[in-house]
Order: sequence, then structure tokens, then C-alpha cells
Amino acid sequence: MAAQSAPTASVGDASGSVGVVQPSFITFNNPLPLTSGQVLPSYELAVETYGTLNEQRSNAVLVCHALNASHHVAGVYEGQAKSEGWWDNMVGPGKALDTDRFFVIGVNNLGSCFGSTGPASLRPGTERPWGADFPVVTVEDWVQAQARLADHFGIEKFAAVMGGSLGGMQAMCWAIDHPERVGHCIVVASTARLSAQNIAFNEVARRAIISDPDFHGGHYYEHGVVPRHGLSVARMIGHITYLSDDDMAVKFGRTQRAPAENGEFHYGYGVEFEVESYLRYQGEKFSTYFDANTYLLITRALDYFDPARRHGGDLARALQAAQAKFLLVSFTTDWRFPPVRSREIVQALLKNQRPVSYAEIDAPHGHDAFLLEDRRYHAVVQGYYDQIALELGLPARQRVTGVLAS
Amino acid sequence: MAAQSAPTASVGDASGSVGVVQPSFITFNNPLPLTSGQVLPSYELAVETYGTLNEQRSNAVLVCHALNASHHVAGVYEGQAKSEGWWDNMVGPGKALDTDRFFVIGVNNLGSCFGSTGPASLRPGTERPWGADFPVVTVEDWVQAQARLADHFGIEKFAAVMGGSLGGMQAMCWAIDHPERVGHCIVVASTARLSAQNIAFNEVARRAIISDPDFHGGHYYEHGVVPRHGLSVARMIGHITYLSDDDMAVKFGRTQRAPAENGEFHYGYGVEFEVESYLRYQGEKFSTYFDANTYLLITRALDYFDPARRHGGDLARALQAAQAKFLLVSFTTDWRFPPVRSREIVQALLKNQRPVSYAEIDAPHGHDAFLLEDRRYHAVVQGYYDQIALELGLPARQRVTGVLAS
Repeated sequence: MAAQSAPTASVGDASGSVGVVQPSFITFNNPLPLTSGQVLPSYELAVETYGTLNEQRSNAVLVCHALNASHHVAGVYEGQAKSEGWWDNMVGPGKALDTDRFFVIGVNNLGSCFGSTGPASLRPGTERPWGADFPVVTVEDWVQAQARLADHFGIEKFAAVMGGSLGGMQAMCWAIDHPERVGHCIVVASTARLSAQNIAFNEVARRAIISDPDFHGGHYYEHGVVPRHGLSVARMIGHITYLSDDDMAVKFGRTQRAPAENGEFHYGYGVEFEVESYLRYQGEKFSTYFDANTYLLITRALDYFDPARRHGGDLARALQAAQAKFLLVSFTTDWRFPPVRSREIVQALLKNQRPVSYAEIDAPHGHDAFLLEDRRYHAVVQGYYDQIALELGLPARQRVTGVLAS
Repeated sequence: MAAQSAPTASVGDASGSVGVVQPSFITFNNPLPLTSGQVLPSYELAVETYGTLNEQRSNAVLVCHALNASHHVAGVYEGQAKSEGWWDNMVGPGKALDTDRFFVIGVNNLGSCFGSTGPASLRPGTERPWGADFPVVTVEDWVQAQARLADHFGIEKFAAVMGGSLGGMQAMCWAIDHPERVGHCIVVASTARLSAQNIAFNEVARRAIISDPDFHGGHYYEHGVVPRHGLSVARMIGHITYLSDDDMAVKFGRTQRAPAENGEFHYGYGVEFEVESYLRYQGEKFSTYFDANTYLLITRALDYFDPARRHGGDLARALQAAQAKFLLVSFTTDWRFPPVRSREIVQALLKNQRPVSYAEIDAPHGHDAFLLEDRRYHAVVQGYYDQIALELGLPARQRVTGVLAS
């Protein structure tokens, strides 16, 4: 593969923002064999990059996204207010993942609905969208596609592969499937496999979508509708699992939304409480932009991920192949992927005598904490990247911005 | 009110079962003013009783039910296999709540779908079911209707009012609204008010039902359909919150339901895991017998319950009126109404110098634990009822059956 510079311009400023960015779309015409046995004949990946790939190509960091995120990790889009990338507080010049020194790649996963090939894309050789016929993809498939993207950039080895939640699963999978290509593996608020309860929540969300009459067996595009009620319910369920009970108590408690004149309830099934209003809004908003087939596909990829499965359930054996150093971060109030799930991974790595750092952050925000600004959390990540930079002989940090500068 | 004996015959046997029972239906023609300001012109309550009301009428215990239960607390129905009442392990001759000594009343709440007047009942003066026009009722309204039932039986004061979950709320409400009529208040796995997260789960369940096209604004009876998809999703959500994460891990883990021949996954959206199969079955079964309007109504009664609300949020002030002695029981793995919610009630009672016993049972089964056999749990309840019997000068326990005899 030919060396290639970043496809998108990154404009740094003193505020720590990577500035205005734009995505690239890269076409791959070599068929991708999938875990399921199916083959994706060709596909396109939506990509953004920030910072500059150095001459040795040693400073590249791949950031993997979770359920409803995308390649748009940092920066803003021209002329679009509130278009910050989903990890803009983490990635930028002087931020924890410092784009003054690192070359950061964000890539939208296959099957998503934000630019990479997915169920809403036209099926090659037809004039119709894939719809329900889009193949089920796995975390392993995503990593395989990302490896081809690395080839495209001429990156033999990533300084780090990093992700939160489902993104953390991809980082782990990288360390297992491509051990020689990952210097450091950073896994935040994740797990080595879903619990029965996790699968249960996913399944209810899928049932809500599939049983919506507007789903039409996944071929709703042709009917000019979307299963928005089902998608909305699915999102509401998910949202509850992203927040902690305590955080919801603080944010909403039992506050009434628009009480009757005497302060009383309305005694009906409309919105009575703030938390209902918030959830309905989140559900409805989500149903206007997210693709239902993608929701099914991504929750299924979550369910299937279980690297220990091929090793009789022994995670340590699954991680034996890994050559990376690891950083794991969990959050005390995360009940979706609680600290005990991260500790299982730490234990499995220690069994293999892999170098591993682990931080359990006392944060009130539940699973969502991995996306939020938190001084201790960002300090841990920043310290870790400073170590990586030192190891690789990258230039010293020029500035500190973001939550750590305040 | 005239004294009246039990409307249903109770047949004790050596096994600790109350034997074959049958419900009574009692009509109330005096209108019931509701919290909402509406008035229920007349109504019927489905009732079962077990044991014998003594001459002093001092040995009556009211058992209040939770979301999907009924007046059928104990015993079986003639010729019906597996028709045990929902608390049959707790209530019977020689059991924790001993029908050799106590006269136990089970009553189906207004708005339910198991015999008492509810949304599926014909609206008086019309030939149509109430449907969505059935008034929203509250825990306070249920207790008011139950008080009239007590009058009907000529019971001035209950030896105890007892309930689990939503049933515990009714017991608490009894102690506050009718202090002179409650000797003991037994509150199991309950809370003095739902948290934002509790309300959130209820709201998602309601949205699933209301957005099902077969709901028809609550008037589905006339369309000859039921919103079974929505009801099924609602039940699945509820079910997840009744079980503990650990219990699900033990029961289901990541066990595959019917793997492909090579042990592999099917890579689709059908059932892959046992937990999916279980939840789908539970959801579908529920949707065949439970009324959707009742589901809305009961979840709303849960949301609204908050006796501290009229007292500036001060639960101790709300409980100031209570004259009962209290027993509170919680379960360590109950994340729907965790122990901390029971402890809040205990604290509020102690502030009022109310006699209160509290047991926190180390049980793995989550919220559902209150319905299950557990030696320590049942021993606590049995011991408490033995004390009540002693206080009231009831005859000594003749036998020990149920989980405590084994």
C-alpha cells in the first residue's frame, strides 16, 4: 500500500479544538469475508483524521466508536452549529489524546448509517437498498475492515487503538486478532462479553423495532416509512441503561414537567414527570436520524462479541496472543458494564503477564461517563498517552487544553 | 355493617395448602370519589378469603397485590392444574402467614383485569367497555375501596395489612390513611416512592403499548384486537427489572438456545440465546392474558405513589399519623426497590418513634425474591406473625408447614 497523508485537513486552535473537519469516503473493492460466512462484495468507509501522520508512521491512533456514534470523533463541520464530534473533549490539540503529536483516525463501522456501507446503502447490482439482507457483521469483521483501512494509510502498527463501550471491544479485538499491529490498547467502560442482562435489554429493543408494523421485515425503505415508534422505544430503553440511578435522581428526581394549576398531577398517561419528557424527546429525536436495521445489527454485534468463546470461555487464553500494553478504565456507577467487567479483563491480562494499567473512576454518570468531561478520567488518559509519546520518541506535549487546562 | 363470615370456603390439609378455593364478587353501589377528582359510580371487587374470622374479628389480615397479581393469593382452583395462588408459599395452614389462626383476605384492585371492575368492564349505562375512559386510580383509591371491603366484613381493625412491591405501598398507605384500623403494617420489597429510573422503565413500557397501532387509543376492545406486541415488550422490560443481573447470569448466562450444527451462531435476529427465548416467551404469554389498559393504570399508580409529597417531601412527617407497628423486609439483590429504599422508610419510622423491625435478606433473586421460597425470609415473617398472634391472644401455632418445615 502506498503511503498517504491525512485525507482531511486538521486546523488546530488555541482552544484545543481540531477545528473544521470533513469526512473522506474510501472505497474498498476487494470482497470482505465475514464471520457469518457471507461475503461483502465491496464497501465504502467514512473516515475522519486529525493531526499529522509522522514520517515513521508511528504516531497513528485508531478511535473506535460505540453504538450510535461515527467517524466524526472531533472537530466541527463547516457552518453547522453544535456539530462537535462525539469525543471532542478527549481528542484535539493539547487534549488527553493530543493531535499536536498523534495522528488520529475515526472510522464509521460497516453496517452503520452515518456514511459507511450499511443496510440503507444500495445493494451492488440492484437499484434497492440492502435493507434486511445486509449481512450481520461482528466486531471481528469491523476490525478486519479497519485493518484494511490501516493498510490504505500505510500504517503498519498503531501507537494505540482506543475505544469506549463497544469501541473498547474493537480495541480488544485488535489486540487479539492483529497483535503485531497494536502498540497500546485502551479499553474504556467496556466488557469482554455481554451479560445475560445486557443481551436481554438488547433483545427487548430489537423486539420493539421488529414488531413495529412499519418495520416491514427490514424492507421499510421501499415502503417510504421508518419504524419510528419501535426505534424510539429501543432508544429509551438504551438510554436508561446509559445513566446511573443516582444520576437520574439528581437530574430528574420526581420533578413534574408541567403540573396542573394547583401543582397537582393530571392523572392521565401524558407526560407528568421530567424524566418522561426527557426520554420521549431522546427517543423521538433518535428515531429521526438513526436507521432501524443498523440498530439491530449493532446490538447483535454486541451480543456476539466473546473472544473467550473459542477458548472454552477462558479469557486469559483468548488474550494470550496479545502483544500490546493495556489501559483499562471503568466508572463506579456504570451498571451496564460495571467495573467488575473491566477487572475480569485486567485479571486475564495479568495471568498472561501483559503490562496493564487500570483506573476505576469514581464518577456519578453511569455508562455515559466515558463520553463526559471528568478531570480524573482525562488525566489518566492523558498521562497514558504522554507515556506512549515518550516510548515512541514523539515530540513533547506543547500545550494542555480541555478539562485538564481549566 | 353486619358481621359476615368468609365468603369462600377454606379447606386446610396437612401439606400446608388452603386447598380448593373460589372467589367471591362483591358489588359496591356507593360511588367512590377518586384522587383524580373523578367518581367511580359503582364497582365490584373480586375477593378470596382463607381461614376463619374469629368472633372478636381481631384476626383479619389483608394481603395487597402487586402489578400482575390478583385476589387469588393462596390455594388452587377446582380442576385447574398449576393454579396455585401467587403467595401460596407464604399463606396457608402452618405457613408463615398461618390460616389456622388468621383470617386472610385477598382482593383484586380496581382497574385490574382479573375480576374487579376495570377498563375491560362494561361502563355503567352503556353497552361498551370503559376502555381508555376508565379513571386513573391511585394507591390511595385502592386503599379506600379496600376499607369499604373491610366494612363489608365487619372488620374494624386488621391484625395486619401486608404486601410486597406495589402491595407494600398499599400497606403503607393503609397505615397513613387509616391509622386506627391497622395493627401491623408489613412492607416487603417496596419503596415510599419510585425513583426517576423506576418511572423511566414504566414510561418506556407505556410507550410500547400506546404506540402499538392495535392500541387504538385504549379502545381496542371494540376493534377486536389487543396491542399484544406493545404489551409483550412492556412485560419483557418489566421482567428484566424483576431479576438480578447475577440471577440472570446463573439462570441463562450466554447459553445458546439452539446452536447451528457446528455449535456456531446463526448470525441473524432470531433467538440465539436462552435469555432471549425466555423473555420472548414471558412477553408473549403475558400479552395473552393481561389487559393493556390495566398495565397503563397500574404503572401509573406506582408512579404517583408518594405519601411524602403532601408533606414537603418529608417521609417522617407523612408517617407521623401511623399507629401501626411495622415490619420491613428487603432483598440485597433487588435493584428495582433496593434495600436503601426500605431503610429510608425505617429511618422515617424511627424518627416518629414507631416500633419497626427490619430484615435485609441476602437473596440472589432480585425483586422477584419477595414471591419466592426463602427460609430466612419466611422465618422472619413467621416470627413476626407469631408475635402478632401472641399480642392478640390468638391460639398457639398448631403446625409448621411450607419452606420452614422442610
